[in-house]
Amino acid sequence: VKLPVLRADELQGLARQFFLALGSPPEAADRVAASLVRSNIVGHDSHGVIRIVQYVKAVRSGRIDPRAEPEVEQEGQCTARVNGNWGWGQVAAWRAAQLAVAKARQAGIAGVALYRSNHVGRVGEYVEEIARHEMIGLAFANNHGGAVQVAPFGGRAARLSTNPIAFCAPTSGFPILVDITSSVAAEGKIRVLRNQGKQAPEGWLVDAEGNPTTDPGVLYTTPAGALLPLGGALGHKGYGLGVMVDVLAGALTGALCSHPEAKTVGNAMLILAIRIDAFAPKEHYYEEVDKLVSALKSCPSAKGFKEVLLPGEIERRVAEQRLAQGIEIDDETWREILQAAQELGIALPA
Amino acid sequence: VKLPVLRADELQGLARQFFLALGSPPEAADRVAASLVRSNIVGHDSHGVIRIVQYVKAVRSGRIDPRAEPEVEQEGQCTARVNGNWGWGQVAAWRAAQLAVAKARQAGIAGVALYRSNHVGRVGEYVEEIARHEMIGLAFANNHGGAVQVAPFGGRAARLSTNPIAFCAPTSGFPILVDITSSVAAEGKIRVLRNQGKQAPEGWLVDAEGNPTTDPGVLYTTPAGALLPLGGALGHKGYGLGVMVDVLAGALTGALCSHPEAKTVGNAMLILAIRIDAFAPKEHYYEEVDKLVSALKSCPSAKGFKEVLLPGEIERRVAEQRLAQGIEIDDETWREILQAAQELGIALPA
Repeated sequence: VKLPVLRADELQGLARQFFLALGSPPEAADRVAASLVRSNIVGHDSHGVIRIVQYVKAVRSGRIDPRAEPEVEQEGQCTARVNGNWGWGQVAAWRAAQLAVAKARQAGIAGVALYRSNHVGRVGEYVEEIARHEMIGLAFANNHGGAVQVAPFGGRAARLSTNPIAFCAPTSGFPILVDITSSVAAEGKIRVLRNQGKQAPEGWLVDAEGNPTTDPGVLYTTPAGALLPLGGALGHKGYGLGVMVDVLAGALTGALCSHPEAKTVGNAMLILAIRIDAFAPKEHYYEEVDKLVSALKSCPSAKGFKEVLLPGEIERRVAEQRLAQGIEIDDETWREILQAAQELGIALPA
Repeated sequence: VKLPVLRADELQGLARQFFLALGSPPEAADRVAASLVRSNIVGHDSHGVIRIVQYVKAVRSGRIDPRAEPEVEQEGQCTARVNGNWGWGQVAAWRAAQLAVAKARQAGIAGVALYRSNHVGRVGEYVEEIARHEMIGLAFANNHGGAVQVAPFGGRAARLSTNPIAFCAPTSGFPILVDITSSVAAEGKIRVLRNQGKQAPEGWLVDAEGNPTTDPGVLYTTPAGALLPLGGALGHKGYGLGVMVDVLAGALTGALCSHPEAKTVGNAMLILAIRIDAFAPKEHYYEEVDKLVSALKSCPSAKGFKEVLLPGEIERRVAEQRLAQGIEIDDETWREILQAAQELGIALPA
């Protein structure tokens, strides 16, 4: 029991029990468990089962309603807004992605806004789902206005959340997947570093006085430090992307932008689905993306690199490995999971 | 005549004469001239009248058809593809933006693809136009598959064009404008540095052997060096954005992705227009974006910065100054313009 390497299905079965124990219907418990474990499978441990304990606390504090159902509001032919009713973000965001696919199938392009949602997990998951339907998916998410952790370019205090952008597009082979924050890193990565007792790379963090630091703990002090926007000396670009995401995910969806009056913490998201043949013949699209893939993979590598990878290729390789060899959970996360399991009366895998 | 500082209207009148002399109808000549000078006004000289001479050559070589009209193809309720017929990019892209606005007004969201277009100039111009209609504009452009200048992350040869992303959103005050390349800089910036005899910042360029360099000339040698993707050590993010843009602008539009078989050089672009009240009440939207603006502007500044700027604020300030004081043209550009004017028999401003 103490060995923190589990098979994906074991881990998912374990995660599911937490959400059932918290009162969620089986379908929702399955969805949330599948979403978290999928993050571990692809190597994004910061969005994986490390979140279980956080979710248990959020249900207990009333922030997550484990029984809430998402509702579709203000629906048009190619637009809609989904109200997550402060239930599971993974359930609401999945609904939003499915709705975007259904609308884009009819209309060619669709936008679905999501608000009043808790943490949706890995944003890339929803655009991957869209790409499985032979569409291009795009998503922009903020923290529903709260939990600012990123300084604007030229500033020294946190004003934005990490505001990710995700994109997935089918190819004849594996889909291209881009899933990046507009900051140097996701907050969850800093949390993992802190749990592992590691330092953050230089150029990622400033402390509460605005001094550069590699201590991941500065994000969790009061007053807190801040993450920096993507780009270093060109940080105006990462900052610009962060503001773009905040407007799309915050203001447009009916949620909140990042500002001091926004006390809510969750995720708000704009999801776009684009049907390929609404714009160009499918054959043309696949011919071109496949040639792009070949051109990128044929690029001679720079010093210190073995090869050029496609966006999403690391995740795919990690997934192959972890599905074969199991998922390693860090000690601190495992200790917290075990403790929460005991409190909730959950049986552990033998 | 030799003093290279001109009023915006003077410069526009001069630019217009070139396009008329090349055989363009007055409306098209006005459009291209207005577009180039607008780039100078907002300080993006790399996309301004420095391009006139390049355009003259492109018309002479047959690459730009100065009389071509853009055509709308494969039109749906909220989607369309515009064929630029290899005429002026500024004319075709303007048409695409207007079409996106008209469709989004009806449907709430619209996507318009543009292909077979020459250089559209500053991509931000088209999303600014969308925002003037109280909509959010998004645009993604590649070089129609040709003119690759950017190395993928981990690679040392050029495989992508600079693949910009532009975003504009209305606020109660000035619109927020993001207009950035997914590479460290636009190719035009490197061209300006070369014309000015200046060096590029470190971390921007590699030469044809993959060695870091600050010589802007390496982009114009054979074999050529390459620009690097945005992000430095986190260049996988800029690279990811570059690939995203290449798929959206290249494959989806009916144009070409960046690859060795693509010999065409121009711009292909996907433009999205989003009507705010298709998703959330306008009052809510403006309240939230205005609070975001206030929160960002109130951020204490980092060392070496006087204040935090909004995306697009520099451009606005430069525009105020240049509209009042005139536009300075670098000697090399002015010399080239004078020479081309003489060849085409164009009268110069007194």
